[in-house]
Amino acid sequence: MRSINLDTLIAAFAGIETITDPHQVAKLSQDYHTFSPVLVPKLEGKVGDIVVRPANEQEVLKVAAICAKYRVPITVRGAGTGNYGQCVPLYGGVIVDMTKMQEILWVKPGVARLEAGVKLAALDKKARDLGWEMRMTPSTYRTATIGGFIAGGSGGIGSIQYGLLGDRGNLLALKVVTLEDEPRVIELRGDDVQKVNHAWGINGIITEVEIPLGPAYPWVEVIVTFDDFMTAAKFGQALGNTDGMIKKLITIFASQIPQYFHALHQYLPGGTHPAFLMVAESSLESLPGLVQQYGGQITYQKPAFEAGKGANLGEFTWNHTTLHARTVDTSITYLQSMFPADPQLQLVEHLYNYFGDEVMMHLEFFRVNGKVIAGALQLVRYTTEKRLNEIIAYHEQQGVLIANPHTYIIEDGGRKVIDPEQLKFKEMVDPYGLMNPGKSKVLQFKIKN
Amino acid sequence: MRSINLDTLIAAFAGIETITDPHQVAKLSQDYHTFSPVLVPKLEGKVGDIVVRPANEQEVLKVAAICAKYRVPITVRGAGTGNYGQCVPLYGGVIVDMTKMQEILWVKPGVARLEAGVKLAALDKKARDLGWEMRMTPSTYRTATIGGFIAGGSGGIGSIQYGLLGDRGNLLALKVVTLEDEPRVIELRGDDVQKVNHAWGINGIITEVEIPLGPAYPWVEVIVTFDDFMTAAKFGQALGNTDGMIKKLITIFASQIPQYFHALHQYLPGGTHPAFLMVAESSLESLPGLVQQYGGQITYQKPAFEAGKGANLGEFTWNHTTLHARTVDTSITYLQSMFPADPQLQLVEHLYNYFGDEVMMHLEFFRVNGKVIAGALQLVRYTTEKRLNEIIAYHEQQGVLIANPHTYIIEDGGRKVIDPEQLKFKEMVDPYGLMNPGKSKVLQFKIKN
Repeated sequence: MRSINLDTLIAAFAGIETITDPHQVAKLSQDYHTFSPVLVPKLEGKVGDIVVRPANEQEVLKVAAICAKYRVPITVRGAGTGNYGQCVPLYGGVIVDMTKMQEILWVKPGVARLEAGVKLAALDKKARDLGWEMRMTPSTYRTATIGGFIAGGSGGIGSIQYGLLGDRGNLLALKVVTLEDEPRVIELRGDDVQKVNHAWGINGIITEVEIPLGPAYPWVEVIVTFDDFMTAAKFGQALGNTDGMIKKLITIFASQIPQYFHALHQYLPGGTHPAFLMVAESSLESLPGLVQQYGGQITYQKPAFEAGKGANLGEFTWNHTTLHARTVDTSITYLQSMFPADPQLQLVEHLYNYFGDEVMMHLEFFRVNGKVIAGALQLVRYTTEKRLNEIIAYHEQQGVLIANPHTYIIEDGGRKVIDPEQLKFKEMVDPYGLMNPGKSKVLQFKIKN
Repeated sequence: MRSINLDTLIAAFAGIETITDPHQVAKLSQDYHTFSPVLVPKLEGKVGDIVVRPANEQEVLKVAAICAKYRVPITVRGAGTGNYGQCVPLYGGVIVDMTKMQEILWVKPGVARLEAGVKLAALDKKARDLGWEMRMTPSTYRTATIGGFIAGGSGGIGSIQYGLLGDRGNLLALKVVTLEDEPRVIELRGDDVQKVNHAWGINGIITEVEIPLGPAYPWVEVIVTFDDFMTAAKFGQALGNTDGMIKKLITIFASQIPQYFHALHQYLPGGTHPAFLMVAESSLESLPGLVQQYGGQITYQKPAFEAGKGANLGEFTWNHTTLHARTVDTSITYLQSMFPADPQLQLVEHLYNYFGDEVMMHLEFFRVNGKVIAGALQLVRYTTEKRLNEIIAYHEQQGVLIANPHTYIIEDGGRKVIDPEQLKFKEMVDPYGLMNPGKSKVLQFKIKN
C-alpha cells in the first residue's frame, strides 16, 4: 500500500463491494503459479491490501479514478487460473476482482460481446443455443473468465482449428478503462486489440470483449492408444493435417502420464501411449481408417449427446494434465514448448528419449501461421531450480521454443519482448505505472507523480 | 453401338425416359473439354447412340441390367461441366443422364444425403436453412450435380478451408449400382468411398451420396488490388495462413486477366493485380490490417446479406476464369498446377516472369495435407499442341505439379496412376468393361464375354 491508509481507501470505495478480510484478500491475491516450485518462494507473502468487486463499468471508472488519485497499484483478476503469477500483486494495493461483471451483452451468429467477468462455460452454454461456441478455450474453461483468458491466456482446446488467441481474427474488440486522473473508456477494434491482448493487465482494465465464435459441431471424445510413442505422435500430426476432418483437440501422452488419470484408468492399458481427441461427429466415421493406418486402438468414445456427462477429456489436457499429475505427486512441474514444423518430428523423438522419465512428453497439436505444430506441456520431475534451468536450456539449444512458465516477468515467458505498441499504449492509459507493477523488465515499479 | 440395334435397346428401356433425337443425344455427349484445343479434335464426332434418364434406383438397376446383358458401353453424366472429356463416349452406346434423380434425402446438422443428380446450388439452398452449406463447390455449382462433382471434380471454393474432395473426411458414403449380369446396389462408407471417388464413372453408377457439410458463415465478397503481382500472391498466402480468419476463397490474378471480367470492370483499375476473396463476416474487420500490411486497396465489398444479388465473385474464379477469358478470346486455354509449399513463392515468381503474356498467372490457394498451397489455373495463349506441351514440360521440370487438362486419359491427368483398389473394385462392378471405356491406359476397351 502506498501513501494512503486503508480506511481512506475503503471510504473512497463506498457503494462498491469490497473485501478486507485478510484470509479472503490473501486468497484473491493468488493464482495457479503454484504449479511452479520456482515461482512459489518468489511470490510468497505477496498479497493485496483490499479487494474491490465492481459490478459495472461505472464502478470500474470510479475504482480507476480512486487508484489513480491515490497512486495505489492495482492488480486486475478474473478467476485467477493463470500459472505465471500474473494475478499476484508484487506491491500490495488494490485487487480488482472482475467476476461480478457477468453479462453476456449479445450473441449473434459467429460473434459475441460480453463483460470481462463472464465465465467461458457460461458463454458457451448460451452460444450453443444458437449453434455456436467459443473458438478455443483453456482447460480451465469451467471457471476461467473471458477477460482473464485474453489478458493471460494464449490458446487451448480449439487451437488446432483456429490457431492462437493472439492470431489476427481471434479477437474482435476490447473495451478498457484507463488509469488516468480522469479515467476514460477506450474501445479498441481491428489490429488495435493487440495493444491489450495478453498484456497481463498492465494496459487498462478490460471491461468488455467481442470475440468471434466457431460453429458448435457435435464433438465426440475419443481415446486411441498406441504401443509406440512416436507412432502416436505421428498419428496426431497426421490427423492435424487431415483437412477434411474437423477436430478440436489432439493431445498425445507418453505412457508414464496416464497413471495420473484415475477416472480414465480402464481406457488406458498400461504401457500404451494414448491420444485424447475431440472430433466432429461428421468426421467420426473417417477416424478408424486413419487409426488403422497407424496401428492404434480406439478404447473410448463418448458420443456428442453425452458431452455433459461423466469425464470430460478436455479436462485432462493442456495444463489440466499438470493439475492431475500434481494431485498425485506435488513434485511434478511442467514446461511449455513449441517444436519446429517437421513431418518426422525428429526433435520430439530426440527429447522424448533424451530425458527419459525426468521429462514426460505431453504433446498438444495446434496451428501456428497456417501449419500444424507440435506444442508440448511436458511434465517434469522437479529436483532443483538449477536442474530445471538446465532442462530448459537444453531444449532451447536443440531448437525448441520454450515459453518459460517459471517466471513472473512477462519478457522471460513466451513474449521475449513487449510489443512497442503495447508500451506506447501503456504510457497513455497508465501514466502513473500502477497496473500490475513489477511484471515487466522495462517497467520498474516507481510511483510517478 | 455394339451387337444390338437401337430399336431393341429402346424397347428394352420401355418405361424409362429415353432421348434419341440425334441433336439432343449429341449435346448430351458433350462436356466442357472444349476449353482444350487439344481435346476438341480428338473427341470430335464422339457421340452416344441413345440417352437414358433414370428417375430412381430401380430404373438405374434396370438400365444397368440391360447394358450388361447386351454388352453396351455406358457413359454416366450429371450436368457435363467437366473439362477433360470425362462425359464424352468414345465408343458410342448409352448415355446415362442422372439429372432426374434430384431428391435431397435428408440434411442433418453437418451431414447431407442426396441423390446423385441433385444440383450443388439446390443442396446449398436447403442446407443453409439449417445453418450449413457444402464444404466446397466448383465454380460451376449453379448447374453441376453432386454425382458429377464427385466422379469428375477435385475441389474448389472452400478448399482453402477443407482441402480437396479426395481428402479423408470430405466424402462419407456413396451408393453405386454395378454393371453385373444381375446388377447390385453397393453402399461404400469410410475409406471405401475412395474406390469410386474421382473415378470418372468407370466404377459403378453413383446413385446416392452422403457428404459432410460446413457451417454456413455469412460470406462477404471482397476485391483487393495490388500494384505488384508477387505482393498480391504473398498477401493471398498470408491470408491463407491466418488461422484466426475464416475464408472460403483466395484467388490472385495477374493484371492481364481482369480485362476478361467486364461485369467487374469498375473495381479493377488497369494494371493492378487483384485478389478475389470470400471471408466470413466475423473476419471482415480483421482484413484491413492485413491488406494494409501488404499495401493493397480494397475496391469492392459485397456484404453477406446481398450474396444472392449481382455478380458472384466465385463465378470469376477456378475454371470460370477460363470460361470468361474464352468468351472474349477463344484462343485461350489453361493449365492446372500445384506449386510446392514455399513461404517465398519463388517458383510462382519465376513462372510469372518466365512466360510473360503467353501464360497469365491465376492462383487459387487451397489446403493440401494441412498446408496452404498455391494452386494455379494459368491462362495460356494457345498456338500449337507442341508449344503447349513445351510449356507443361517446363513447369514440370521446374517442380510444378501439372494435372494436365489436355488429355482424356485419366492417368495422364492429375492421378498419374489409377489406385489399385479402384481397379480391383472395377473388376468386380464392371466385369464386361462397359463403363466409360477408353479413358484409362490400363483398361483398353474390348468387350469381354
